[in-house]
Amino acid sequence: MTKNILFIMFDQLRFDYLSCAGHGDLQTPNIDRIAEKGVRFTRAYVQSPVCGPSRMSTYTGRYPSSHGAQYNGFPLRIGEMTLGDHLRPLGMGCWLIGKTHMRVDQAGMERLGLSPDSVIGARQAECGFDIWQRDDGLWAEGPDGFYDKNRSPYSAYLKSKGYPGENPWADFANAAVEGNDIASGWFMTNANKPANIDEQDSETPWLTTEAIKFIEQAEAPWCAHLSYIKPHWPYIVPAPYHDMFGPEHVPPPLRSAIEQDDPHPVYEAFMNNRIGKAFSRDEVRNKVIPAYMGLIKQCDDQMGRLFEHLETTGQMKNTVIVITSDHGDYLGDHWLGEKDLFHEQSVKVPLIIYDPSTDADVTRGTTCDALVEAIDLPATFIEIAGGEVPHHIIEGHSLMPFLRGEAPVEWRNFAVSEYNYSTSPMATQLKVSNVDARLFMITDQHYKFIHAEGGFRPMLFDLQADPNEFHDRGASPDHKEIIDMMYDRLGQWARRSSQRVTRSDTEINALKADPKGVGIVLGVYDKTEIDLALTVKYRGQTPEKQE
Amino acid sequence: MTKNILFIMFDQLRFDYLSCAGHGDLQTPNIDRIAEKGVRFTRAYVQSPVCGPSRMSTYTGRYPSSHGAQYNGFPLRIGEMTLGDHLRPLGMGCWLIGKTHMRVDQAGMERLGLSPDSVIGARQAECGFDIWQRDDGLWAEGPDGFYDKNRSPYSAYLKSKGYPGENPWADFANAAVEGNDIASGWFMTNANKPANIDEQDSETPWLTTEAIKFIEQAEAPWCAHLSYIKPHWPYIVPAPYHDMFGPEHVPPPLRSAIEQDDPHPVYEAFMNNRIGKAFSRDEVRNKVIPAYMGLIKQCDDQMGRLFEHLETTGQMKNTVIVITSDHGDYLGDHWLGEKDLFHEQSVKVPLIIYDPSTDADVTRGTTCDALVEAIDLPATFIEIAGGEVPHHIIEGHSLMPFLRGEAPVEWRNFAVSEYNYSTSPMATQLKVSNVDARLFMITDQHYKFIHAEGGFRPMLFDLQADPNEFHDRGASPDHKEIIDMMYDRLGQWARRSSQRVTRSDTEINALKADPKGVGIVLGVYDKTEIDLALTVKYRGQTPEKQE
Repeated sequence: MTKNILFIMFDQLRFDYLSCAGHGDLQTPNIDRIAEKGVRFTRAYVQSPVCGPSRMSTYTGRYPSSHGAQYNGFPLRIGEMTLGDHLRPLGMGCWLIGKTHMRVDQAGMERLGLSPDSVIGARQAECGFDIWQRDDGLWAEGPDGFYDKNRSPYSAYLKSKGYPGENPWADFANAAVEGNDIASGWFMTNANKPANIDEQDSETPWLTTEAIKFIEQAEAPWCAHLSYIKPHWPYIVPAPYHDMFGPEHVPPPLRSAIEQDDPHPVYEAFMNNRIGKAFSRDEVRNKVIPAYMGLIKQCDDQMGRLFEHLETTGQMKNTVIVITSDHGDYLGDHWLGEKDLFHEQSVKVPLIIYDPSTDADVTRGTTCDALVEAIDLPATFIEIAGGEVPHHIIEGHSLMPFLRGEAPVEWRNFAVSEYNYSTSPMATQLKVSNVDARLFMITDQHYKFIHAEGGFRPMLFDLQADPNEFHDRGASPDHKEIIDMMYDRLGQWARRSSQRVTRSDTEINALKADPKGVGIVLGVYDKTEIDLALTVKYRGQTPEKQE
Repeated sequence: MTKNILFIMFDQLRFDYLSCAGHGDLQTPNIDRIAEKGVRFTRAYVQSPVCGPSRMSTYTGRYPSSHGAQYNGFPLRIGEMTLGDHLRPLGMGCWLIGKTHMRVDQAGMERLGLSPDSVIGARQAECGFDIWQRDDGLWAEGPDGFYDKNRSPYSAYLKSKGYPGENPWADFANAAVEGNDIASGWFMTNANKPANIDEQDSETPWLTTEAIKFIEQAEAPWCAHLSYIKPHWPYIVPAPYHDMFGPEHVPPPLRSAIEQDDPHPVYEAFMNNRIGKAFSRDEVRNKVIPAYMGLIKQCDDQMGRLFEHLETTGQMKNTVIVITSDHGDYLGDHWLGEKDLFHEQSVKVPLIIYDPSTDADVTRGTTCDALVEAIDLPATFIEIAGGEVPHHIIEGHSLMPFLRGEAPVEWRNFAVSEYNYSTSPMATQLKVSNVDARLFMITDQHYKFIHAEGGFRPMLFDLQADPNEFHDRGASPDHKEIIDMMYDRLGQWARRSSQRVTRSDTEINALKADPKGVGIVLGVYDKTEIDLALTVKYRGQTPEKQE
């Protein structure tokens, strides 16, 4: 029987902010329980350390430079195949509960005459998912704000619960109160205050309830993408989570003065932006990190609620559970905030996979340090659904062999991630063109290499000698051979076959096996050189034109 | 007033088989006349030396590895933008008269619910063109033949003229008579016989007549792709063209014994295939080349007819004329027949552009040796139609500055071509995988470099010292620096931004200029740090939940 897939994604959850990953102060027993039943991948990389392109890669199984949606708000081109396109023909439904950060290719929809009113058009407009609930959160306001009440079922829920105003997401779920003012969660000084909302009405419990409602009625087999908006900023959480952690739980920042000594120009520009400057201040870290931990603690408690539902309904036995994130959060490490660059805190994500089948018994509770990419998930899901992975489209590889304790015969020896910063002020400062405002990361088990377009030197970190990534060896003559090797790999990867999406290997092999070629006889001088069958038509007939 | 564009493409026309390009025995006065009125580009390269991918690049303005249709019969993916998508919104019609070699992405059409019965579906199925006549020719028969009478208006024409049988294309237009037998043009021994058809009924005059009919009724401004099937094989031509040329006009083959001494394995495999073996025989060249010359002579005569029509109707004054080909023909040079590889005889094409406007007076009758690619044509046409070239989609550049005698400020310093031989028997012989059966060429004004995936050494020719490309320096230690430079260029090219097709530079620049970002305030600790306008909402309000 085909199992279901519960594909849980948190937003901006750092790989090391889970107790199963070694965090000392933050206990996440519910997520840990899945790790104990499954495999925890310790070197899982997203294909771009920012929401939109990371998710588009995870949903398509393709690198950002393959699918083209290389930054937040860059639409996913019409016709680009997503999880739903692959799973539905295998008989598995593909549903969304939460966030995708997908922007529809409106010009492409119009060019192809597709309307979101049709089933096909709706799926194209929703990243291939059928929608249980879609809510991308981040309903910003202010003079340039965006807030689409039609796209916020969570706001509708809050209104139904009596929270007033146009945008209760901003005014209650992501704000506290201070005197007579709204103390907005957008301002990090408010991160230690309780959000002005009943805890059970906040985003994470609401979405968990939606997931349980979905599961209660879903037709199996299903793949459900349960996609939380948290612990992503605004950094604010309701009581009792707002003061579970305090400055005493904030670790010292993982940064070194040596990083500020002649840094790579791109890194320097990010360090010096408003976010980097803010997160280099202790007062910011001391307010934000406890709130971030509280948000994660709330997430884990909701996982407990969800997993209990699966246990009591017997679904834990027929559901594969995946827990991951779309990127991490610097939190002041490396003099940076947010994500965007390629230090482990940003580009590496938690990845836990639990498979209830007996095949996976051999690996329960283990970790795996293979170089895994987020684009491996669609391939994994296709295998679970009983399909063949179409590798002329999907660039990732199924992780199921790792769960069965079988080392794949061939596995990648480097992982890749990309970043397009063309819309940022840093591109202007660095005077790079839109196409040059791109970064490529290659990491293997020893080194991490970053190439920046635009004529800059590369960056290089020796992960074995320098696991904290403080010492950039990109300008080191001693590392020339490593850098040359990394450029060879980058070239090999960049030349990959990523767009031959209309011709499968099976089809090519069939053409190769029968090279006669549909009756065209090439390079033949005389009919005696080939089979009689091909020439019989030309014998004993003298056709004449009829006047 | 926007001019029309008559975009003439021949199939398999070698760059040097025109008298304006220096051919001594073959006079092509009509094509030469356009060269005298326009600019002849002497280093124009197709993006793949084989029909399908070359044409898909020419119609999309994108490299084969960008559009994905990398070999004959590989469908052009749904939604990939073509000439028609770019020209029609500018008010210019985009019409097809002849061949495209486009295969529809049927799976994509079905996935997106598109039917060829609709206007949108029909254009998707026809490479973006509106159809005056589409006929791809090559209506092969035999046990594995293909012949779709619904797709051959030319066969329908022949039938209307009284030619009997199911497939008069094969039986008359491309066959002679020998005794009581059809002497098929597929067999090169028959190349010196006259095709069993009235000359005015043969393919080239038929299509020319269709072009004149189109022009007589077309609504200006129009772009018409007049796309001839000839001088492509079958090598057979009706009287009087069949014996205008004889073995005495066949030049010695441009080949050297040194090419067979330790050749590159991929080159060796092509030399040793049936076609290479056949074209290395004198009897084959002595039959084929005179027929090939006769076919070209017929093409040129039809050009005379067409241009006279334009002159007498006054259209020559408001029509840009482009003459080119989709690839060349080895004709036994380099021990090869057909095309497929990257010697000049295969990958370089004739390219002549005539612009009637006075801006172009300064360059009439000149040649231009800039490195030009076929993907430059859509960009050129968009400029003619009065549009801005969308360089996030189209990878070529307008050639109009060259016609105005303005050297572009920046122009490419190398041209690129690609070849995917995964379906061929050579891939099997060489034991390369489908993705490794790919070749990349880079040429500049000094060298030509070819990279073969699959662990082979590269090929390198010094075009200045060795213009005949006999001496492969790909294994030469003396050329290591050149080869390293070429690999750097290949990497630079392979990392190009080719799929960010949903976000234009104009849009990115607008986002960059206004980095406030739709009301999201990132990295702000306190409301005093930002504009009052962004925070006014948060003052003097204490919202309360309504119970």
